[in-house]
Amino acid sequence: MSKTDPGNYFEDFRLGQRLVHATPRTVTAGDVALYTALYGPRFSLFSSDAFAQGCGLMSAPVDPLIAFHVVFGKTVPDISLNAVANLGYAEGRFLAPVFPGDTLSAVSDVIGLKENSNRKTGVVYVRTTGVNQRGEPVLSYVRWVMVRKRDAEAEVAEQAVPSLAGAVAPADLVLPPGLDFSGYDWALAGAPHAFEDYAIGEKIDHVDGMAVEEAEHQMATRLWQNTAKVHFNQFERAKDPSGRRLVYGGVVISTAKALSFNGLQNAGLILAINGGRHVAPFFAGGTVFAWSEVLDKADLGAVGALRLRLVATKDRPCDDFPDKDAEGAYNPAVILDFDYWAAVPKRG
Amino acid sequence: MSKTDPGNYFEDFRLGQRLVHATPRTVTAGDVALYTALYGPRFSLFSSDAFAQGCGLMSAPVDPLIAFHVVFGKTVPDISLNAVANLGYAEGRFLAPVFPGDTLSAVSDVIGLKENSNRKTGVVYVRTTGVNQRGEPVLSYVRWVMVRKRDAEAEVAEQAVPSLAGAVAPADLVLPPGLDFSGYDWALAGAPHAFEDYAIGEKIDHVDGMAVEEAEHQMATRLWQNTAKVHFNQFERAKDPSGRRLVYGGVVISTAKALSFNGLQNAGLILAINGGRHVAPFFAGGTVFAWSEVLDKADLGAVGALRLRLVATKDRPCDDFPDKDAEGAYNPAVILDFDYWAAVPKRG
Amino acid sequence: MSKTDPGNYFEDFRLGQRLVHATPRTVTAGDVALYTALYGPRFSLFSSDAFAQGCGLMSAPVDPLIAFHVVFGKTVPDISLNAVANLGYAEGRFLAPVFPGDTLSAVSDVIGLKENSNRKTGVVYVRTTGVNQRGEPVLSYVRWVMVRKRDAEAEVAEQAVPSLAGAVAPADLVLPPGLDFSGYDWALAGAPHAFEDYAIGEKIDHVDGMAVEEAEHQMATRLWQNTAKVHFNQFERAKDPSGRRLVYGGVVISTAKALSFNGLQNAGLILAINGGRHVAPFFAGGTVFAWSEVLDKADLGAVGALRLRLVATKDRPCDDFPDKDAEGAYNPAVILDFDYWAAVPKRG
Repeated sequence: MSKTDPGNYFEDFRLGQRLVHATPRTVTAGDVALYTALYGPRFSLFSSDAFAQGCGLMSAPVDPLIAFHVVFGKTVPDISLNAVANLGYAEGRFLAPVFPGDTLSAVSDVIGLKENSNRKTGVVYVRTTGVNQRGEPVLSYVRWVMVRKRDAEAEVAEQAVPSLAGAVAPADLVLPPGLDFSGYDWALAGAPHAFEDYAIGEKIDHVDGMAVEEAEHQMATRLWQNTAKVHFNQFERAKDPSGRRLVYGGVVISTAKALSFNGLQNAGLILAINGGRHVAPFFAGGTVFAWSEVLDKADLGAVGALRLRLVATKDRPCDDFPDKDAEGAYNPAVILDFDYWAAVPKRG
Repeated sequence: MSKTDPGNYFEDFRLGQRLVHATPRTVTAGDVALYTALYGPRFSLFSSDAFAQGCGLMSAPVDPLIAFHVVFGKTVPDISLNAVANLGYAEGRFLAPVFPGDTLSAVSDVIGLKENSNRKTGVVYVRTTGVNQRGEPVLSYVRWVMVRKRDAEAEVAEQAVPSLAGAVAPADLVLPPGLDFSGYDWALAGAPHAFEDYAIGEKIDHVDGMAVEEAEHQMATRLWQNTAKVHFNQFERAKDPSGRRLVYGGVVISTAKALSFNGLQNAGLILAINGGRHVAPFFAGGTVFAWSEVLDKADLGAVGALRLRLVATKDRPCDDFPDKDAEGAYNPAVILDFDYWAAVPKRG
Repeated sequence: MSKTDPGNYFEDFRLGQRLVHATPRTVTAGDVALYTALYGPRFSLFSSDAFAQGCGLMSAPVDPLIAFHVVFGKTVPDISLNAVANLGYAEGRFLAPVFPGDTLSAVSDVIGLKENSNRKTGVVYVRTTGVNQRGEPVLSYVRWVMVRKRDAEAEVAEQAVPSLAGAVAPADLVLPPGLDFSGYDWALAGAPHAFEDYAIGEKIDHVDGMAVEEAEHQMATRLWQNTAKVHFNQFERAKDPSGRRLVYGGVVISTAKALSFNGLQNAGLILAINGGRHVAPFFAGGTVFAWSEVLDKADLGAVGALRLRLVATKDRPCDDFPDKDAEGAYNPAVILDFDYWAAVPKRG
């Protein structure tokens, strides 16, 4: 028996199957420093223990995207090693904050399977849950990917496509225990914009552009122990028409999120991921720009929540908000369309 | 109202104005590891808790340049986002050591304003103070930058140019509390050269050359949350005659300082920055070399202090100490001329 | 007297001489995060405090290769700054686990000297010992390098070539105190392969390929304060026929070791280094592949040990196990041939 793990093919999955992912991961201050070095985020809540303590937390939690990347990375060897495309995310909820020292592990439940008509591929839907060392879920999300079949003739018995929410309902958003923005320091946070200041439909250009190098996206992706071959194996990628390694989509998400500080200084704390689409591939050497749109608002009582659409482009400033047209075709510069809820302090 | 922050223009500053900079930053062991990976420093005091404890400290403090970069980075969005050039530093003093776990924040006081005769730009002088989570100042320095005006016609009421010291006086140098070099381990430190062994006028070639890659300077600059566009926005920089991203000057300082270990093994602890000039721009791909000159000596009692001039070049070894000529014109390879005080153990 | 350290030449070494290496180094969680970002290792024992606690340890130790790189790096300025070639390793033993917070220092004893017949170079054999802050040895190994003479005419009085073991004997392998695999979580570890499942002579293709960038190998090498000029000084290297910086051999070892997870998921804990040869130089931009061969097995009672040969190639998949031919000539793609013992859980 070969000990080399080839990853799962479409016909290896079963509805209801639970996959226990390898390599639990203790998140540390080293990860936070690398996250800062790779993206340059400036949200005070994740940057300063003192600021976080002023918001009722014991110390600075890590950016929720760190938890997302760690958990996502664990799933790659089991779910998407033989994937053709990452199709979407839905129903992502952050359920508990993660602090340096916490250890995350992940499981995925297969909730949907749909073979494609060509019989060479199929779509796998999984609900992935990240859990900390106390067994508490910290993150849950649904992801669907198109996966190759090993054998086109293989029969796939039971198929089903799950019904997924278009967005997480405000009532399902979970705040970090103890979070209290009543003494929020707007000056140290970087801007006075409160929940009340944002209007549905408002668009914000984040102005700055950030170049991404090969070494940077490789380090960012290895850091989360994500093993997808397309990010690292240049020898193999040289045979692709692009000839290039693909940048992990999570790098684009984190880069755009860090850029969004300019205009969304007080909306750093992601509570939920409603959806996300990697509209076009991104390669190293490009410069990422981003803009945001306020899709919805929800008053959670102690804090507000903004539903935001984060759109990233490559080599294309966003002062005119490049978007999709009436037929749904994206401006060719758009690489990411990401939909999330973030907590924002109220002016009170 | 747009929520996008365009940064301050010259006419936005007022004499006496205090700017509270955003994003306090907890410094961690992760930052120290990245600093080591980006520059390769070998000064034992910052590398080893055990060595630092042998010098009377509770653990290894971070290199004072880390505190400088953190504090400097915070000022960029408010002071120099619309800068044409960073003109100089003066009166920089390190007032308390910074240890992993400390949280730094920064404020700047506008102490000088001088419009240029073309009315398109002006020089802003600020005194910046970095403060830890206990409110203790850890660093203070003056910096002046040439900043664009938004509107050439705008009137700038009150102008003044501050009078600045050519160098920090030895009596104003502050040692880390508890610092005690009486049991200094010269072998572990890497060289036997004591305060008594250095002569004013002595020049030291640091021999080694260090290449800097795009990914490295970007990571180094993001790590300190420095947002200056010239370091990251390749799309925009492609329109510059150089076509290149500029390397943050602090990268050159830290690279040259790390190279200075070879010959200044016992002079790692910077106490003051007397001045600094980024003589020429530096671009990724170049190799940095450095040499030092002993400008002055001061016996502080328990320890000695050397006033050192650190000169860095690009793609040019320094065995003949490339410098400025009699007219003050620099050798074209010189990129940095940096003047500082460092603590050095006495032979006793 | 010049304070610039030129490094030792062959005639500067003496049999029996002990060199105390500079710059003790506290290993931190920051180093671990960088190690993960640079290589992408997935061995659970080093990734998760919770997993390590389940194996009887107080928290996750660092990968033994981190201890090796730290200690090796310290020796470079004294041993191999003027080296022509790194010839080999032998008798490497890991004697105590290293945890974040531990401070490592290193000494080397000169155990062999052999001048070459051309009188321009000679081979220096050293036994290097890494010690933690409690004075406990954590690592010991023999290394031999060919070093230039400053003066071909210089006489080298006493010469000797040490007799070295071909491999560390199983009885000399040291397990981390408390290590207990009786509750080993095979699912979280990533594979069910136990000591009993490996056969002598078995070969394993590790499948994945990992590209290495200039920024990555420079950061990896600086992180360990390794000062070998060939890795960093591009200005000087431009004169070499290759025109390129050489990648530190330790980068290839760690990259190949991380790749070996696929097939050796439970053999992450290196106990000894029997030997190692950098068969050919490696330059940035290449993609590393690897395969392993089981050379021997030893039942240590509580755990098993596998003697493994780890072969790395550049730009050459390893599904057919590229190797040396009957005359001992390596396949031209091979860059590393590394021989080590690793602990593996028994099925029990």
